[in-house]
Amino acid sequence: GADSDIGGFGGLFDLKKAGYDTEDTLLVAATDGVGTKLIIAQETNIHNTVGIDLVAMNVNDLVVQGAEPLMFLDYFATGSLDIKIASDFVSGVADGCIQSGCALVGGETSEMPGMYPAGHYDTNGTAVGAVNKNDILPKIQEMNEGDILLGLKSDGVHSNGFSLVRRIIAHIGLPWDSECPWDSSKTLGEAILVPTRIYVKQLLPSIREKLLLGLAHITGGGLVENIPRAIPSHLQAHVDMSNWDVPEVFKWFGKAGNVPLEDILKTFNMGIGMVLIVKKENKPRVVELLTKANETVYEIGYLTKREENAHGCIVTNAFDLY
Amino acid sequence: GADSDIGGFGGLFDLKKAGYDTEDTLLVAATDGVGTKLIIAQETNIHNTVGIDLVAMNVNDLVVQGAEPLMFLDYFATGSLDIKIASDFVSGVADGCIQSGCALVGGETSEMPGMYPAGHYDTNGTAVGAVNKNDILPKIQEMNEGDILLGLKSDGVHSNGFSLVRRIIAHIGLPWDSECPWDSSKTLGEAILVPTRIYVKQLLPSIREKLLLGLAHITGGGLVENIPRAIPSHLQAHVDMSNWDVPEVFKWFGKAGNVPLEDILKTFNMGIGMVLIVKKENKPRVVELLTKANETVYEIGYLTKREENAHGCIVTNAFDLY
Repeated sequence: GADSDIGGFGGLFDLKKAGYDTEDTLLVAATDGVGTKLIIAQETNIHNTVGIDLVAMNVNDLVVQGAEPLMFLDYFATGSLDIKIASDFVSGVADGCIQSGCALVGGETSEMPGMYPAGHYDTNGTAVGAVNKNDILPKIQEMNEGDILLGLKSDGVHSNGFSLVRRIIAHIGLPWDSECPWDSSKTLGEAILVPTRIYVKQLLPSIREKLLLGLAHITGGGLVENIPRAIPSHLQAHVDMSNWDVPEVFKWFGKAGNVPLEDILKTFNMGIGMVLIVKKENKPRVVELLTKANETVYEIGYLTKREENAHGCIVTNAFDLY
Repeated sequence: GADSDIGGFGGLFDLKKAGYDTEDTLLVAATDGVGTKLIIAQETNIHNTVGIDLVAMNVNDLVVQGAEPLMFLDYFATGSLDIKIASDFVSGVADGCIQSGCALVGGETSEMPGMYPAGHYDTNGTAVGAVNKNDILPKIQEMNEGDILLGLKSDGVHSNGFSLVRRIIAHIGLPWDSECPWDSSKTLGEAILVPTRIYVKQLLPSIREKLLLGLAHITGGGLVENIPRAIPSHLQAHVDMSNWDVPEVFKWFGKAGNVPLEDILKTFNMGIGMVLIVKKENKPRVVELLTKANETVYEIGYLTKREENAHGCIVTNAFDLY
């Protein structure tokens, strides 16, 4: 519980009412923005989804630590305030907070003439959560060869790789309102702006049943850079890309931009927004819990011994992707 | 406090080690930026103080709720990252965190080409703190006619009123590196950029001794708009400006800009950065505690009955200010 009866300049939150006691609880906070995906929202005049991205980037970064996001605060800054744009934006933030079970306890809207070019705005968000000491992830010490990597389906590009996206689209010269080359049901802008999937409520049951060893939120750097951050340096992640269907969007960007596969792998999530590291014996229960929560779960690989000077993540069956 | 052994994307904080238990504790969070004072930092190329302003704006907003700031997170966004500027900026944030006893548990530096004009950056900060339920301020129900208003000296303009400041300076045509008209020991830019005073550690002893009824952080809106937000609607604040020496800077802006006194009073702090509402009998102890903590304390006024349709704050002896 957020305590909305008490006014003031900051949001108040009752940790005990939310089920936490200080004996075992640590506070966790994360702060992040949406990056240049915002520019596409501004160019397409679609402002009601990037607030979801903002919440997603922060709450997904908390849940990978085993934490439950409790409070969220947003910052919205622009040169000249447009009420319609600002309220569309905040409606997205509110949607994201509902999806992740966060209380939106505060926000700051800042109008700074001379700071932003006309029509531009920037945003940042902060999520505060709590974690029981025994639930903190990753549990590096408990990871071993043979542990399983599960992947949760992403909802498109999420919030990373947009410098590359914009470069490729500008190079090709496609307008944002043209039909999306990989999904004829949407405009290019709409398809690109699909918000980052929030994985919080879906993962908390597995965290509370202590079924997870670690989580990797697949952001900038892709699978190849984000998985190694969640595992010990003596282990290597093996990811077999034939284990799931890589969405067309990533193949299209690789081909249309003539981008080397290695760079695509380091930039995009390739269809997997969250990676779970689990003991083999816990896999069935984790898959059951996540499927029940409407997640699409793939077994994408496993951990093995890492040789000296070897990469922390090896991807196989990617060579003929596009 | 902060548990720096555990890595990851969010900062972890041990509430119990900081002396809080959940039975009586509420979490409080505030988020705010620095506004257009940043543009002056950018025009003067002085970047190591606005981080203090950033922390100040947030932690002062927590302490007025009776809360102790515990964690801070900052956001720094620019079009093209200049390492020297970014590190100067963050050194200010670190100074502010030390001054206020906060752990800097996280931050995000964002480089977004096309979002900011060359040389510009924006920033935002979030402070998270804790308050014992019995210490929450303001204690609106306990305020009465005759309660005393104490004022703590400000350190210049702080972080509000900078649209007016920039308009007046541009109108006069004074360069930032010229001698400051009201303080010959500094350049104009240096005098304007003096950071917002942080009142946290100084006020906490009085909060813990339960000597305060309320606090008002004097930001945009000045004394006349900020004090009424901290008192009940049936009481009126009487502030007598002959009780302290209004700093030259505010007189200079009024005169040089030919600004009506009413607008100056609604824009600047007039030399008082924080107002305390206290029972008459507690005044000596509060003054003692704050003087010991190196604050300059003035008795600036008192509370009285508010007539229907009357203002929440009346300022007297301001007429011949400039």
